[in-house]
Amino acid sequence: MIVVGELINGSREPVQQAILSRDEEAIAELAVSQSEAGADYLDCNVGMVGRREAEHMRWLVEVVARAVDTPIAVDTANPDAMAAGLDAWPGRERAILNSITLENERLEHFVPLIREREVRVIALTMGNDGVPATAEGRVDVAMRLLDALEAAGVTCAHIFVDPVVTPLSVDPGGARVACEAMREIASRCPDCHLICGVSNVSYGLPRRRLLNRIFLAQATISGLDSAILDPLDAGVRSTVYAAEALAGRDEWCAGYLQAWRRGELQ
Amino acid sequence: MIVVGELINGSREPVQQAILSRDEEAIAELAVSQSEAGADYLDCNVGMVGRREAEHMRWLVEVVARAVDTPIAVDTANPDAMAAGLDAWPGRERAILNSITLENERLEHFVPLIREREVRVIALTMGNDGVPATAEGRVDVAMRLLDALEAAGVTCAHIFVDPVVTPLSVDPGGARVACEAMREIASRCPDCHLICGVSNVSYGLPRRRLLNRIFLAQATISGLDSAILDPLDAGVRSTVYAAEALAGRDEWCAGYLQAWRRGELQ
Repeated sequence: MIVVGELINGSREPVQQAILSRDEEAIAELAVSQSEAGADYLDCNVGMVGRREAEHMRWLVEVVARAVDTPIAVDTANPDAMAAGLDAWPGRERAILNSITLENERLEHFVPLIREREVRVIALTMGNDGVPATAEGRVDVAMRLLDALEAAGVTCAHIFVDPVVTPLSVDPGGARVACEAMREIASRCPDCHLICGVSNVSYGLPRRRLLNRIFLAQATISGLDSAILDPLDAGVRSTVYAAEALAGRDEWCAGYLQAWRRGELQ
Repeated sequence: MIVVGELINGSREPVQQAILSRDEEAIAELAVSQSEAGADYLDCNVGMVGRREAEHMRWLVEVVARAVDTPIAVDTANPDAMAAGLDAWPGRERAILNSITLENERLEHFVPLIREREVRVIALTMGNDGVPATAEGRVDVAMRLLDALEAAGVTCAHIFVDPVVTPLSVDPGGARVACEAMREIASRCPDCHLICGVSNVSYGLPRRRLLNRIFLAQATISGLDSAILDPLDAGVRSTVYAAEALAGRDEWCAGYLQAWRRGELQ
């Protein structure tokens, strides 16, 4: 499982405070702890919009780059903040642009950034009319996004398709539809990655960690190979080991058994 | 989820002792506790073979029938023990015959029992050459079993197809293949049930409960609607609530929220 650590996100109050007060130590600690827990990428989201977003993003990425070598995912809908974040990170081509959609304006603004910087891309199955309600609709948007990205020079192996998991509390069929869409996208384009923001699924419901873990298991058997999640949550890490072994992606359970010997399985 | 409680099984040492010493109280306690924990059926397996199996099975089923109203699943490969168990249970037509396979001899011996007693049936995707290695092979056996059972007068809604989950420790792709087979069987025959012996998957590996829970989640999104499991395991029960809500089978999460209010979610 390719893990994108989700904790450097300004929508979380302590992170917002750290960004506004330029508290480099607090951000560096989140970068180090997530990297040590096995994050393959670190999401960077300043949690603010407006003119200063690009300035905050540049500072945030510079701090992360000084603390760790782990590549980043620049998480913003603002093209200026995206360019600032990508340019502030030294190993540019390994970074992830998070995210594009099939919405006209967003695609138009981001394609030049992608073409110039040769970055990896998270592509949400969302068009001008929002997120399609059906799996077929999301697969259709995914295929059009893959075409647009390949035209912009991105290889399939550098594209992370996100079927957009809606909260179960507002869309009772949302998790099932996302899993169906992933199975179909995986069968049509085996080289692209499939990613989800796992914790979205449990928004507004009690015992969120239980729902997050069970959804992660279901998504993994449906083709998910990457996830935006909290790598410090030991229950989530245990779930990843078990889910990948059961999905047949951990030959002879070697990874699962190693994690067990390290005392990491809950 | 239709739950078949697995605890009355003579391969478990205390149950074996209770059967041999005719300890009615110990068996009745397992019947009551599993029923109170929500079991829809109680598996009855004497864990012995040979001439006395039928006699033990008759006693076991009589004890369970005196303790609870919960229907039973008579779990044996011996046709005489099967007949003895089914006949000892008062509400015969609600019982489950566990199990038939496509093996010639087993099918021949059990079809008359099924025809006479109008029972429900667990059908393992296993033929004369064992369990097919591929999902396609298991789907093929399942379809032939469904034909044979319908010819014997069993409606689809009374058939529980079991794709035979092999232990991950001996078959690294086994859980994935079982999930693939379930998805295809569910799409070809939406009226039949899909069942698994969940704990088989973790045999020989550490942290079995973790693997059992994660497999249960993956199987549920693949179409599993029935399971042979330990209903007293609170982690398993929590997983069932979360997995069914995420699979879109719990409208507005009503069952999940009720379980949470009762303090049942771990």
